[in-house]
Amino acid sequence: MARIVMKFGGTSVAGLDRIRNVAGRVKREVDAGNQVAVVVSAMAGETNKLLGWCQALSALHDAREYDAVVATGEQVTAGLLAIALQEVGVEARSWQGWQIPIQTDNAHGKARIREIDGSDLIKRMGMGHVAVVTGFQGIAPNRRITTLGRGGSDTSAVALAAALKADRCDIYTDVDGVYTTDPRIVPSARRLDRIAYEEMLELASVGAKVLQTRSVELAMNEHVRVRVLSSFQDLPVDAETGTLVVDEDEIVEKQMVAGIAYSRDDAKITVRRVPDRPGIAATIFGALAAQNVNVDMIVQNIAADSTTDMTFTVSKADLPRARMALQEVKPAINYIELLEDPNVAKISVVGVGMRSHAGVANTMFRALADKAINIEVISTSEIKVSVLIAAEYTELAVRALHTAYGLDVA
Amino acid sequence: MARIVMKFGGTSVAGLDRIRNVAGRVKREVDAGNQVAVVVSAMAGETNKLLGWCQALSALHDAREYDAVVATGEQVTAGLLAIALQEVGVEARSWQGWQIPIQTDNAHGKARIREIDGSDLIKRMGMGHVAVVTGFQGIAPNRRITTLGRGGSDTSAVALAAALKADRCDIYTDVDGVYTTDPRIVPSARRLDRIAYEEMLELASVGAKVLQTRSVELAMNEHVRVRVLSSFQDLPVDAETGTLVVDEDEIVEKQMVAGIAYSRDDAKITVRRVPDRPGIAATIFGALAAQNVNVDMIVQNIAADSTTDMTFTVSKADLPRARMALQEVKPAINYIELLEDPNVAKISVVGVGMRSHAGVANTMFRALADKAINIEVISTSEIKVSVLIAAEYTELAVRALHTAYGLDVA
Repeated sequence: MARIVMKFGGTSVAGLDRIRNVAGRVKREVDAGNQVAVVVSAMAGETNKLLGWCQALSALHDAREYDAVVATGEQVTAGLLAIALQEVGVEARSWQGWQIPIQTDNAHGKARIREIDGSDLIKRMGMGHVAVVTGFQGIAPNRRITTLGRGGSDTSAVALAAALKADRCDIYTDVDGVYTTDPRIVPSARRLDRIAYEEMLELASVGAKVLQTRSVELAMNEHVRVRVLSSFQDLPVDAETGTLVVDEDEIVEKQMVAGIAYSRDDAKITVRRVPDRPGIAATIFGALAAQNVNVDMIVQNIAADSTTDMTFTVSKADLPRARMALQEVKPAINYIELLEDPNVAKISVVGVGMRSHAGVANTMFRALADKAINIEVISTSEIKVSVLIAAEYTELAVRALHTAYGLDVA
Repeated sequence: MARIVMKFGGTSVAGLDRIRNVAGRVKREVDAGNQVAVVVSAMAGETNKLLGWCQALSALHDAREYDAVVATGEQVTAGLLAIALQEVGVEARSWQGWQIPIQTDNAHGKARIREIDGSDLIKRMGMGHVAVVTGFQGIAPNRRITTLGRGGSDTSAVALAAALKADRCDIYTDVDGVYTTDPRIVPSARRLDRIAYEEMLELASVGAKVLQTRSVELAMNEHVRVRVLSSFQDLPVDAETGTLVVDEDEIVEKQMVAGIAYSRDDAKITVRRVPDRPGIAATIFGALAAQNVNVDMIVQNIAADSTTDMTFTVSKADLPRARMALQEVKPAINYIELLEDPNVAKISVVGVGMRSHAGVANTMFRALADKAINIEVISTSEIKVSVLIAAEYTELAVRALHTAYGLDVA
C-alpha cells in the first residue's frame, strides 16, 4: 500500500473520453490497494479562453477577478473526474482549493502556496475515497481565490504530496518522461530513468517544458519523489516507467551530462563603448531591474582604451522595456551604440556529474568548434554550462553536443 | 439614494458585448447615487453544456459534483462583469455564494436558501462598491457548493434583496415586463404596470415563464418589490418601466382579471370505471405520489352504477412513470381501462379582482362556448380559473378570453 498523488495536465483531461481514461488509471491504482489523491488542470484551451475574455474586457484587468474566472477551469475538471470515478465504482469527491484549504499568499495571478491542511483528505483517503483536487489554485488570507501562475498545477501536486506525506507524486503529461534532449531534434535522444532535482531544475529553467520550475524547487526542498510519465501510454506504473526525479544520492551511476536543453526565448543586447569605471554596471542593470527586466547571461569585454562593451541577454518579451530603460540612462553612462540581436539561441548542458568530472566545458567548446559554430556568450553554474549562439545553428549544436557527450542511444 | 439589487439572466450576459452593456446599466444606477448589488446567471447555454457533460459521464451523476461543475458558470460571469465595471470606472468585486456566504440546505441540485449574511456587502456598498454576486448557488452546511435549481438566480436576487433590505429588486430579462398574455399569440396584449404577488405566482405556475415561482413566493413573504424589465431596451428606470410585482394593497384599480396563461406541458389521464367506494382515490394518488408524480387538476365523474371515472393531469414528462404506477395498482382497484391524452392545454385566467367580482368563471365558459371549444376539466382557486381543452384550440381560446375580459389594448 502506498499513498500516491497523481497529477493530470490539460491535454490529459481535454474532453470526456480522456477524463474517462484518467478515471481508469486512477481506478487501477486504487484497485492495487493504494490511497490516491488526484490533482487536475483545466481542460486544454480552457484557461486561455477565460484569460482571453478577461483581456478583451480590460487590458489591465483586476488580477483578483482574473483568478476567480480562470479557477473555474479546474473546478469543472475536478467535478467531472469525480463523476467519472464514481461511474466506474470508485468512491471520489472533488475539492476546491478553498475547501481543503490550500492557503496561499495574496499575490493574485502568481500566488505561492503557504500551507495545505491535509488532515481531511488523509482521513477520507484512509476510507478508500479518492480526493480529486483542483490544481493551480488556492485561497488567500482575504478569502478570495488565488491562482499560482502558468503550470501551477505541477506545484499544487508536489505541495499536496508533501502535505499528505505521499510516497510518490506521479505527473502525467503528454510525454513519457524526461529526455536527454528534445527528441524532435535528436531522434536518438534517450529517456532518463532518473534525474536529480537540481538537474531537472536547470533543464526546466533553460527550456525543457516538462515540469514547472517552482514545482521542482518545492520537490527538492520537501524531498517529494516525482515521476514524470505519459497519460497516453497505457502501462502499469513500475520502477521503469517514465522518469523519476529524486535526490542526487539516489542516482548511482552519475553521467557527466544528464541532458541538453535549448531556448530561443532570449535576445542579446550589447551596450557599446561605455566608460570603463566603477558604477557603470550598477547603473545599467539597476535601470533594467527598475523596469522589471530579468537579465540572464552577462559578459563584459576586457577594456580597450578607457571604454568597454557590455553584452547580456534578456527574454524577447522584455526587449522593448529593456531598450526604453537603456535609452533613459544614456545621458548617465554615455554609450556610443545599442545593439540588439533577437536571433540567438541558448544551448545548455546540464549534469550533477560535472561536480566530479573535469573537461565538460571543453568538450562543449570543441564540439561546437568542429561544426564551425561561433560562441557569443558563455555562462556557467556548478552543474551547467550555457552558450549563446546564432539561432540558425540550434539544431546542429544540440545534435553535435548530444553525440559529443555520448548520450545517443547505442 | 436607493439600495438596489439588479439581476441579469443568461441571455443578458451571453457574450462580452452584452456584459459590457450590463456594466453600462449598472454604472447608470451608480452614477444616480444608488447602492447596487448585481446578481448574474451563467452565460446562456453554459449551464446546459456543463449539465450535458455530467450526464454524458454518468446518467446518475452525483448531485454534489454536478453542483460544483455547473456553479462555475455564474462564477465566470460574475468575475467578467466585475472586470467590465472596473473598466468603466466603477469599483466592483465578484462574490461567490460561499464567500458571502449564502447558506442553503443540503439538497444538492435544488437547494433552498436558509440565510444570507449581508453585512460585508452592505459595508462595501456603503463605500460605493458594487457587489457582483453569483446567482443560482450557495454553500451547504457541509461546506460544499449547492445550486438552487433552474431559474434559481431569480430566487438568489430576491433573497439578496431581502437580506440587504433593498428598496428594489430589478430583474432584467429578455422581455420588457409581464403581459396580460403571451404577445406572440395576442399581439394586442398589454404590459401590466403592476401585478400582485399572488397573481404573478399563479401566472408563473401555469406557464408564464418570466419569473421562477419560488422567487415570487419569497418576494411575497419578504415584501421585496420586484421589477421585471428588459435588458435590451436602453431606457432609464422609472415608475413606468417594466412591471412592478407588489402587494395587492399597492394596486389601486384592480382588474377582474390580470392575465391569461396557457400551458401545453400537461397530459390527461383517465382511469375508467373504478369501483365507487372509499379508498380508491387514496390508492390511485398514493401510487402516483410514491413514483414522485405530481398531479394537478382532478375530476371525478358522478358515479353511474357502482363505478366511476377518475380524470386528472400530470406533466408530460411524468407520463411514463404515471402509467407504470397505475398498471401496478390495477389488481387492487380493478379498473377497466387507462386512457391517456397528451394533446391537451391548460388555459388559466388569473386576477386578485376575482375575490370581489362575481361571474369570472361564467364569462370564461361563455367565451369558450361561443368558439365551440369543449372544456374537459375545470379547476379553480381563489384568484384563478383553469380549464383543460384540446391543445389545437390553445391560441383561439387565449384570444377569445383576452377579448372577453377586456384586456385588449384600446
